[in-house]
Formats: sequence, C-alpha cells, structure tokens
Amino acid sequence: MNFEPAIPETKVLAIASHVVYGYVGNTMATFVMQALGCDVAALNTVHFSMLHFYFESGLLELLCSSLSSTQPIFNLFEPTEACAGNHTGYRQVRGTKASAQEIRDIYDGLCQSYLTDFDMLLSGYSPNAETVQAVGVIARDLRFRSTNKPGSFFWVLDPVMGDQGRLYVNEDVVPAYKSILRDADLILPNQFEAETLSGIPIHSLPSLATAISMLHTTYLIPHIIVTSIRLTPSNPTLSIIGSTFRPSNHTPRLFKIEVPALPCFFSGTGDMFAALMVVRLREACLEAGVTDRKSWVSGDDVSATELPLAKATEKVLASMQMVLEKTMQARDRKLAGLTEGGKGMSSSSGVEVGGDDGEGKRRYLAETKAAEVRVVRNVRDLWCPEERYEACELQV
Amino acid sequence: MNFEPAIPETKVLAIASHVVYGYVGNTMATFVMQALGCDVAALNTVHFSMLHFYFESGLLELLCSSLSSTQPIFNLFEPTEACAGNHTGYRQVRGTKASAQEIRDIYDGLCQSYLTDFDMLLSGYSPNAETVQAVGVIARDLRFRSTNKPGSFFWVLDPVMGDQGRLYVNEDVVPAYKSILRDADLILPNQFEAETLSGIPIHSLPSLATAISMLHTTYLIPHIIVTSIRLTPSNPTLSIIGSTFRPSNHTPRLFKIEVPALPCFFSGTGDMFAALMVVRLREACLEAGVTDRKSWVSGDDVSATELPLAKATEKVLASMQMVLEKTMQARDRKLAGLTEGGKGMSSSSGVEVGGDDGEGKRRYLAETKAAEVRVVRNVRDLWCPEERYEACELQV
Repeated sequence: MNFEPAIPETKVLAIASHVVYGYVGNTMATFVMQALGCDVAALNTVHFSMLHFYFESGLLELLCSSLSSTQPIFNLFEPTEACAGNHTGYRQVRGTKASAQEIRDIYDGLCQSYLTDFDMLLSGYSPNAETVQAVGVIARDLRFRSTNKPGSFFWVLDPVMGDQGRLYVNEDVVPAYKSILRDADLILPNQFEAETLSGIPIHSLPSLATAISMLHTTYLIPHIIVTSIRLTPSNPTLSIIGSTFRPSNHTPRLFKIEVPALPCFFSGTGDMFAALMVVRLREACLEAGVTDRKSWVSGDDVSATELPLAKATEKVLASMQMVLEKTMQARDRKLAGLTEGGKGMSSSSGVEVGGDDGEGKRRYLAETKAAEVRVVRNVRDLWCPEERYEACELQV
Repeated sequence: MNFEPAIPETKVLAIASHVVYGYVGNTMATFVMQALGCDVAALNTVHFSMLHFYFESGLLELLCSSLSSTQPIFNLFEPTEACAGNHTGYRQVRGTKASAQEIRDIYDGLCQSYLTDFDMLLSGYSPNAETVQAVGVIARDLRFRSTNKPGSFFWVLDPVMGDQGRLYVNEDVVPAYKSILRDADLILPNQFEAETLSGIPIHSLPSLATAISMLHTTYLIPHIIVTSIRLTPSNPTLSIIGSTFRPSNHTPRLFKIEVPALPCFFSGTGDMFAALMVVRLREACLEAGVTDRKSWVSGDDVSATELPLAKATEKVLASMQMVLEKTMQARDRKLAGLTEGGKGMSSSSGVEVGGDDGEGKRRYLAETKAAEVRVVRNVRDLWCPEERYEACELQV
C-alpha cells in the first residue's frame, strides 16, 4: 500500500453545496480530494441539514422515479407540490442558501488576504442563475491571475441542472451556465445536461458525438465527459463518453468506458466522480507532461485512448465502482436487519424503522440512509483503484 | 501500513466554525475524523472566508502577541480597534454567522428525518452565548435519546473562550458554558479556560490539580484534559494534564505528558487535538471494554497512567507533533524562498510577497499561510503515530 499522495501539493477551490448529514456536494467532494492529498478551500453555496435539500428543487421526486426496487412512498413526491416552496413536507429540509453577494463577499475576503493561489477550481451545485454567474466571475478572476503561466489554473465545471429529461433548477440557470462555459477546461454534464447545453437531442451514439463536437467548437471547451449514459433503459451497463479536442482544429477524440449499472440508487456519485477526476486528471496530465500547456491539452498526435482524460477516467471509475459495490453490500446487510427487526429500533444496523406515524416516510429515509456512499470507510479504494476498465475509441 | 480504520463505524456530529481557507474549526476537525474513518456531520456555526475570522473577536491580536519570531506588523492589531466591528481592517474577513435559531433549525431538520443516531458529539467554537446554549440543548437531546443505552452517546466539549489570560468571546459566554458543562463527558480547556471555568487561578501544578478536582466534583465532568500548560514562560516543554474521575467518589486520577514546545505559531491545533481525541479515546475505551458504561469511566482500580484517556492522549500528541514538525519544516522552506525571492511572486514557494501597498500585511499573511498545518499531506501520521510519549502519574 503506497501512502504517497498521487499528486504534488494542489490547492483546490471547491464551490458547491454543504449538507450536514450525507455525502453529497462539497461534503463528498471536499473529503475525497483531501483524502487524496489536496488542500481544499470549500466555499459552500447552500447549508442544509441533509441530503434532502434536493427536495426543494424537485430532485427527490426524480430520484424516486429512478429507484428500481422501491416505490414513491410519501406524499412529498407529487411533482408539482414538491416544487412549491411551502409544502409541509419541506419542514424537514432546514438551512440557508448563500446569496450571490455572499459568495462574492467570501471570495473578496480571500482576494484581500492574497489567498487566491488555487491550482484548480471545482464547481458544482449552485442554487440559481445569480450564483452561477458569481461562480463564473470567480473563475474568470482566477483564470486572469494565471495569465502569465499557462496551465497553472484549471477549472472543472459540473453543470448541475437536471437529469433524465427534467430540469431541477429554474430555467434561467441554463443560459447562465451557457454564458460561463467558455471559461471551463473540463465539463461533466450527464446525458440530459449535455442535451440541454448543446441543444442537440441525444438518442444515439452519433447524436452524442455531435453534441460533444458542438460543445468543443461553440464554447471551446477542451475536455468533456458525459456521465451516466443509458441510451436504452434495459441496458445493464452505463456508458461514460469523453473527449479532449485536438488543439489544431477542435475536433473531438472520443473514448468510451462501460461499467456495470448497480441495482441501487446512490446520492453524491456525481460529486464523487468530479472530485476524483480533479486528482486523477492532474496526475495523468503531469505524467503526460502537459500541465504547462493551456488547459492541459495533448497534441494532435495523441489518440483518444491515450489521452490523459481517458487514463484518468479509467481510474476514477474503478475507485467509484469499488466503493459503490461495498456500499451496496453494506446497504443490503442493513436493509436485511431492518426487515427482520420489523418495527422499532434495529440496534445492530442502527437503522430506525417503524413508529406510530409516517412509517412509509421512515422506511424511505432509512433506506436512503443505508445507501449513503461509504467513502470514509473505503479510502483505500480511492488511493488504489484496481485496473478494471479500459477506454476504447468511440467510432461514430 | 495498516489501512483498517482504528475504530468501528462511528457517527460524529461536529459543531464548530467553518472557514473556506485554512485548517481551523470544523475545517480541521471534520477532515481529521473522516480520515480516521468516522462519518462526520458538520454543523457549522460560522462561515467565514479564512482563518482570520478570529480578527473579529480580537484573537489575532492575541496570536500575534504569542509569536516568538515575528512582531505585530499591521495596524489591525491595536487591541481596542481589533475588537470593534467596523474597523477597516475587517474588510478582509467576510462571511456569515449562524444564529442560534439557524443552528436549532438545522438540528430539527435532522430530527425530523431520524438522522440523530450520533455516537459522539464534538463541539468547538460558538460565536456567542445563545449559540453555546443551542449546542447545550442539542447535546441534552442526544443524551436523552441514548438514555436506555449507557455509553452509546459521548460528548467532547472544547469550551473555546480565550487564551493567555484573555477572553476572546463576550463575557456572557462564560456562564453559558458553565450552564452546559454538566452534560459533557470530556472537556478540553486550555489553562486559561480551566481557570475561567473553575474560578481557581492556576499558577502551579497543585492549583491546576485543584481546578480539575473542582470541575470533576462541581460539574460532574468525568474526563478533563487541560492542554498547553506553560507555568513558566521559559519552559521549553508544554504540559498536557488529564484526569478521569474515580466513579465511586469523583476524585481525580491525574496524569501528565510533556511535549517539546515548537518554535512556531500554528492555528487549528486545538481543533486537531479534539478531533484526534474523539477517535483515540473511542479506540482506547473499546480496548478497555468500558464503552457500555455511562461516560466510559474506568473502575476505581485503574491507575492514572492506565486510563484509556491517558493512552489516547499519548497517541494524539504523537500524531500532532509528527504533523507539526513537518509543517514547521515546510514553513521554513517556504519562508526561506520568500526571503530570497524578495518582492513579487516567489513561484517556487507559491507565497505571494511584496506589492505596492501593505507589504507588512502581505508578509504577515504569507507567514501565516506558510504555517498552515499540513494535515492532508501527512495522513499517515494520523493513522500511525509513533510511540513517542508516555503519561506519568501526576503527584501533587
């Protein structure tokens, strides 16, 4: 077991949500990057009690529709009500959002103390168009500060907007993201977000390739990874497709990696993917000797499967699958205890079930909790991913 | 290198400050506990841009007075002005404080989702008396929920109030802490805070022992560690003195550990100590088989040096000194680069120095930054402390 960090000292500014309980947003991303040796400055866009801050944007209703083994079980999930601000179900979502002004203020505080020497920026969930714009301003400022040193600043942008055909942010967030995309070095949309940003419906590999080409050429985004692609619902695998454009003409170099789809809904996997990518891409680009180039873009002669982006994605996916498999096993053990225990506290699993009101809700919450990604208990899988996946070139 | 976590799954609620840049408060404590395998729910009492949120409470002026090698160098440090809210120097401290109501709201959110299965609570900096009281209410609620299962909840309370003879919180914070002490299992005052809470001036080992006895018997606090004791300024060592009371009569069992005082000012070491203590005390108490007893108190027959508290403190201090030594070496390398580089950006060290205004301030901030505790780069020292220190019984 090698205990040397994979990358030299790296300072990352991470702008995303903070939840007290549960590994999503910055709560996930900060730990993953720190565990791999990065100094992380966490600028939190929201401070909520738990995972279910997503209630408010309607995401949970969406999550529920994607659960294969459980049915929507409490009335919070009616789509229209779940999007309304004052539904009583919301009582359990507590906390505050940072305004765009508060985000700017915190960043100004860093500037005034000369604490802007970030090597990388990772940005995730922003609650509205104004905060997306504020993140864009911060990114441009950090880019400007690195002008004289190409490659000394790199922005990984996860344009969190929706999934499975539906937005869970206000519509004005879409143009806000479009207005800041041009400054990003790597974006990590899911299939729906790639459609939304490119305007190209994705129903096949060729249309996906067209969308990636469009994002490369229109917004000059050098690196793109589209996560969680499932073109047919029955497919037992998820595809991840990425590309780094050729520096001479911005044409894509497409690669694909397939991973088994696990029969479990996890939260925070997008944040985990992004955080691991920060570390592994830096590692791969250092190995390839391209970190002194603008946006770490490999020369035209490098093939799709030899791209640092492809090498990094292989490692990221291996770590993720290893941790998620263990999470699923632990969840199954907990849920077995929950079923055996019936009502009352199942002391061995620590899962509270039953009770005299809202049993459906309790059960749903217990199941959600049991599937919390077990990232702190499996740090070794972050450090030492097995060689599991190999990128292949995507010919379309 | 053993990569198994030292303790079984442990859920910790951590209530303290969050800063974006710099390892203090929850930013330090959360990472340390997660790195050692704990699931940490971080409830942040303040959200500030940087370490220097302490400006506002006057602490920085205090820090500066304790720097051996550098002088106070910018006008922020005038004591009276440093305590005033609108001093221009404060422009660089940006962010928000959580109100007591916001803290209660977030906790209510957890309760309503049945997310209160915490094994331990670690509480640190609270900005005022109301938030201290809010933390006390949360702790009592968690205690109440564990009523039927002795030892299933344990509260480590760091009563952050001041240092070196001076409060850096409002005076009403002192009675607020006194009113919640009785619910704590372990408190971690420094010498000044132990004086303040006990009302007993500490100028010698016997007076320190008297203060600890008083805290054991008056507030029924089972475990106490007084950190950073320096009874004579010229002493090249710091003493750490702890005690777990005898269950039969609440008399102290005092032990002492001495560590070399490092010639460098570090921030966040109290938070690091507390976080490591959460893990190592749980580990030692599990080994001793006392975690099913109320407050994990060993029987009367266990001597001071055999206490799990003493064993835990030995490991905590070893990890800390190992990390701090490496931090100091790295700082010295950076400051050497800063001196050689003169004005302008010293690219090798990443430390910004010079500039056309406020050079003294820049230099001070660069020095502070260079001394940031290098905790993410030295996780192995958290996992595997050397056997460096041995507790001895304190006879007074």
